Amino acid sequence: MNQDLPRSINDKPGLIPRQVMPENLESPINNVLTWVTPNELFYTRSHLTYPTIDMHSWRLSIGGEVSRPLYFNYEQLKQMPQVDKFVTIECSGNKRAMFEPPVPGEQWKLGAVGNAKWTGVPLTFLLDQIKPKDTAVEIVFTGADSGIRPDMDTPVNFERSLPLDKTLLGECLLALKMNDEPIPYKHGFPLRLIVPGWYGMAHVKWVTQIGFVSNPFKGPFQAIDYVYLTNEGDYSNAVPVTEMKVNSIITWPSKGEIIHPGQHSVRGLAWTGKGTISNVEISVDNGMSWNVAKLTSPEHGQYTWTFWEYAWNITNPGHYFVLARAHDSNGNVQPKAAPWNAKGYGNNSIHTVAITIPQILH
Amino acid sequence: MNQDLPRSINDKPGLIPRQVMPENLESPINNVLTWVTPNELFYTRSHLTYPTIDMHSWRLSIGGEVSRPLYFNYEQLKQMPQVDKFVTIECSGNKRAMFEPPVPGEQWKLGAVGNAKWTGVPLTFLLDQIKPKDTAVEIVFTGADSGIRPDMDTPVNFERSLPLDKTLLGECLLALKMNDEPIPYKHGFPLRLIVPGWYGMAHVKWVTQIGFVSNPFKGPFQAIDYVYLTNEGDYSNAVPVTEMKVNSIITWPSKGEIIHPGQHSVRGLAWTGKGTISNVEISVDNGMSWNVAKLTSPEHGQYTWTFWEYAWNITNPGHYFVLARAHDSNGNVQPKAAPWNAKGYGNNSIHTVAITIPQILH
Repeated sequence: MNQDLPRSINDKPGLIPRQVMPENLESPINNVLTWVTPNELFYTRSHLTYPTIDMHSWRLSIGGEVSRPLYFNYEQLKQMPQVDKFVTIECSGNKRAMFEPPVPGEQWKLGAVGNAKWTGVPLTFLLDQIKPKDTAVEIVFTGADSGIRPDMDTPVNFERSLPLDKTLLGECLLALKMNDEPIPYKHGFPLRLIVPGWYGMAHVKWVTQIGFVSNPFKGPFQAIDYVYLTNEGDYSNAVPVTEMKVNSIITWPSKGEIIHPGQHSVRGLAWTGKGTISNVEISVDNGMSWNVAKLTSPEHGQYTWTFWEYAWNITNPGHYFVLARAHDSNGNVQPKAAPWNAKGYGNNSIHTVAITIPQILH
Repeated sequence: MNQDLPRSINDKPGLIPRQVMPENLESPINNVLTWVTPNELFYTRSHLTYPTIDMHSWRLSIGGEVSRPLYFNYEQLKQMPQVDKFVTIECSGNKRAMFEPPVPGEQWKLGAVGNAKWTGVPLTFLLDQIKPKDTAVEIVFTGADSGIRPDMDTPVNFERSLPLDKTLLGECLLALKMNDEPIPYKHGFPLRLIVPGWYGMAHVKWVTQIGFVSNPFKGPFQAIDYVYLTNEGDYSNAVPVTEMKVNSIITWPSKGEIIHPGQHSVRGLAWTGKGTISNVEISVDNGMSWNVAKLTSPEHGQYTWTFWEYAWNITNPGHYFVLARAHDSNGNVQPKAAPWNAKGYGNNSIHTVAITIPQILH
């Protein structure tokens, strides 16, 4: 290449659209080679119209069942103690497109997951300044985004609650930064709740209001969506979606790839909601035998994914099925097929990639 | 939004990676709203390593079975007569991921297709200047890209031939520009062959050599790849891949979408290799009944795709299958299922999109 080349040589992978309005974009996960997902390649999942943010009037209110409601503006939040946390966030609908029979909703494949460094105020630092009443049972986080759901005629805001669980709340952040820059607009500027270990819906974007409530919250993004339903429309045994399940994906090779015989490195990612990844196994014979992969992350903590790789010396032409299966420190392991559910959440089925090694022609 | 918003608000859809090396990128077709695909969202299909292009020594040679071989540099080509052509190019492997049973190769979904304005020298303007010998039977176009195929141990260049068919050659361009800018590097800078109506493999990128040959060309990208094979590895009845088949896709709604009841516009694209699109029909009842869509392209010529849309007033909640079926002026119509073939080419099956209309909650 030289200086005579035309300008537009940077037509490179970007986010993959899954829905236009609201905009839902998947990460090109096989091409994201860094442990921290760059902001511009981090998946976005929006439920409603993007909000209008006016920073001159913006404030965070904390109230409800409390003795001392408070308001903070952006500058005040920036002056508070800040902590960094690396947290992997997976959309609970990730891999929904692989459920059989198919289910409605964004047809996420593998890339509704990302890992970022979040910087912000520990949630408990704020909560310690107000006095919740004894009647409070949950905290509701309200995003500035609002709009019409397909199943309702009146506009709603995106809202989700968390239980008053000290351990859980102690891990949460109100993040002002994502990978050392102000949270990008589509990722919740200026303030996003981070709930380490939970699926993405809990990490409320554009947070403007935190409210203590005296009854379990029943908003549509809590009671209608984000529940595991065995049968469509049957809420009698609905189980809320909370922590991420142990999961992994193969990032190389990808489905359908035709690969020259030789020494290759099968690569991928693994993560879990609670605890750490203890082991990733790879099968190159469709699950008949398993081999231990090497965990190669720069950090190996809770709440973040880990890289793994497995050296594979391919000698014989043919069709192969490559599988990855992750185990976590709580003894959880990925199933061959995750339980089907009507809204398509929590698909942590073992990822299988079919590839071909051709005959060498002479 | 105001001036306090952070910089990175432009995390928008981009090209979708299908393979890292060689780089193969799919167009985010549901999000490309213009009749002409912007260069940065045009799919790229590369077979080998990207070539190094040195414009100081670059030249196009035309030789082989000719009496008068010639060379041209880039400046000379730019001085020749230039014509514009809008041409839709579809990769013959587009929709390969939808073949059942699955086949190896890039798992293209819907977006290995694009429409661009190509500007360049009519191929016949150049061919008229050399004198092919009577022994010549085909013309071979050689790209500067070379590398190792997964099924061969020695490097090859990408090469394809065309028959000495006056009508066909009369349509071809040696394009210097794509959408009014020099052909982008990944799309074949400085010179790309355009073969209107043919699948993408014929549109050789980085063309540096045009050679008349006295025997049918048997290069691997002609005799091994880009043939319809009924059975894997059986070349006894191999049929070459040439013209694009009549095809269409639904760009809205997309699979799995949950849509509020009301008046909606089903939208999409249709194209064919020979002739023009005469009719697109839409079914919203899984193919039981069909309705005529409106063709809404700015231009309605040969070799380019057409927009279509269909007004759908949705009143009843439920699950729906939306289908689109295009007809061309030669009487061709899309089949329910295109013939399966071992290398997964020419999938012009009717596109079906499953969507859901929810009950409205009050």
